[in-house]
Amino acid sequence: MLYIVNLPSIFGDMTAMKYAIKNLELIEEKDAVISVTRRELFSSFGVYESMKVMDGKIEYIGDHLDRLFESARILKLEHNFKADSVITSLEQLVEINRDKKASLKLQLIGGKKPSLFAFTTVLPTYPYSYYTDGVKVITYSGERIFPRAKSNCLLLNYMAAREASLSNALDAVLIDRDGFALEGSRSNLFAVKGNTIITSEENVLYGVTRKRTLEIAEKLNLSVEFRKIALLDIKQCLFDEVFITSTSMGAIPVRFVDEVLIGESFPKTNLINMELK
Amino acid sequence: MLYIVNLPSIFGDMTAMKYAIKNLELIEEKDAVISVTRRELFSSFGVYESMKVMDGKIEYIGDHLDRLFESARILKLEHNFKADSVITSLEQLVEINRDKKASLKLQLIGGKKPSLFAFTTVLPTYPYSYYTDGVKVITYSGERIFPRAKSNCLLLNYMAAREASLSNALDAVLIDRDGFALEGSRSNLFAVKGNTIITSEENVLYGVTRKRTLEIAEKLNLSVEFRKIALLDIKQCLFDEVFITSTSMGAIPVRFVDEVLIGESFPKTNLINMELK
Repeated sequence: MLYIVNLPSIFGDMTAMKYAIKNLELIEEKDAVISVTRRELFSSFGVYESMKVMDGKIEYIGDHLDRLFESARILKLEHNFKADSVITSLEQLVEINRDKKASLKLQLIGGKKPSLFAFTTVLPTYPYSYYTDGVKVITYSGERIFPRAKSNCLLLNYMAAREASLSNALDAVLIDRDGFALEGSRSNLFAVKGNTIITSEENVLYGVTRKRTLEIAEKLNLSVEFRKIALLDIKQCLFDEVFITSTSMGAIPVRFVDEVLIGESFPKTNLINMELK
Repeated sequence: MLYIVNLPSIFGDMTAMKYAIKNLELIEEKDAVISVTRRELFSSFGVYESMKVMDGKIEYIGDHLDRLFESARILKLEHNFKADSVITSLEQLVEINRDKKASLKLQLIGGKKPSLFAFTTVLPTYPYSYYTDGVKVITYSGERIFPRAKSNCLLLNYMAAREASLSNALDAVLIDRDGFALEGSRSNLFAVKGNTIITSEENVLYGVTRKRTLEIAEKLNLSVEFRKIALLDIKQCLFDEVFITSTSMGAIPVRFVDEVLIGESFPKTNLINMELK
């Protein structure tokens, strides 16, 4: 009887406990730590994913795992993790953490003994006005190393995002050496002209929401043009609409680039965003 | 009496224990861990130093601390650590670990609560023949982000160093978009022509051993020319000698770049290296 009496308080503690995944095993999140002597950790030799959990379900988990493994392949980061078992442990994590709406982070760190960690955090949400009125983005010069890999070599993205935040902008668009606006620090970039949507295929990360946006474009009978977008063309308002996409954002229209007003109505972006939701 | 009898075994354990520094405090190295939920850790938003401990003394500690703080300044990585107290705790670490000859690593990770970690590892040593016969280096295309900051955004360096290791080369020289050989993945690069030594002042890390090499050059009545070195000039043997420098290496002459023999005798490099020791 004593044991049964004690059970509720035990479960009480357990529900308060937060879990993480280390190498496919559930552990307490407070134990999800890594030694500072681990060389790969401080050499950015790792790849990652940020997923969206809605209604307790991990959205597009297959696409995210595909990309994680593709990022690892690009960097020749060898590991023995298999998509199926990673998916199983991520689903266990979301279930035990009772995450209904969350951001799920997955980290794969290279080395002789690769490590895989996952944990959940609060899902960023954005005001409704961002979608109706558009947002401001800033520009930030710099080129990512191995842009097709979602690696932990994120200093440029971090610096750009911090600059954006200081400028009250939602994101910073990275500008390459030739003046092309390739992608945001944590988003992909699209432009709309008539019935065509334009995005770069070169030197950008292939976002999961970017991929879905391209599928939706086809469904909406929009044609897709893969080419790099010149910052000058954006600032000279050569496009009808410009928008950014990410897993947490969906598609958010851009109103200002730096201090330049580039658009005030966003019918195509809104259409795409409705389909993304 | 019992306590005294037990003391030797207690000390026996203590000498086996390895220590690290966390935020100026001595801790056991096994506790020098960091949560995988720490965003800055996985955004390469950190700066570091590798120092050389010889005869229990940390060499050029002042220069290393100056550079650490300069790297932090470049990245606007705010912190409240002061050189004096960092030096005191590093000296404590080397003493308690009884490190006579070691590599001392210092990591400063940014964020709302910046973290400072230090630990010691085995000092890399190089065969005597490297200094007499020269070594092979390979070339690797890519440009570091914020090259003047010794940051943890090291993916390019990691990939280049791995490629070097697979090619049985000591290091990889990073080649910029214009074909200039700027620096090694973990070294600075110099060329010698007559009584002049040449090294880039632009887009390279200002190595502590680079600085000393420049001082030694002056002492040896060599003139110094600051300019970028074209890879083509190296491969066409336009220089008398080419060498690389780092804290652990000193100055090591280069015999081969990729498969091209570029030098067989290294009198100036040897002279400089003798002064470095």
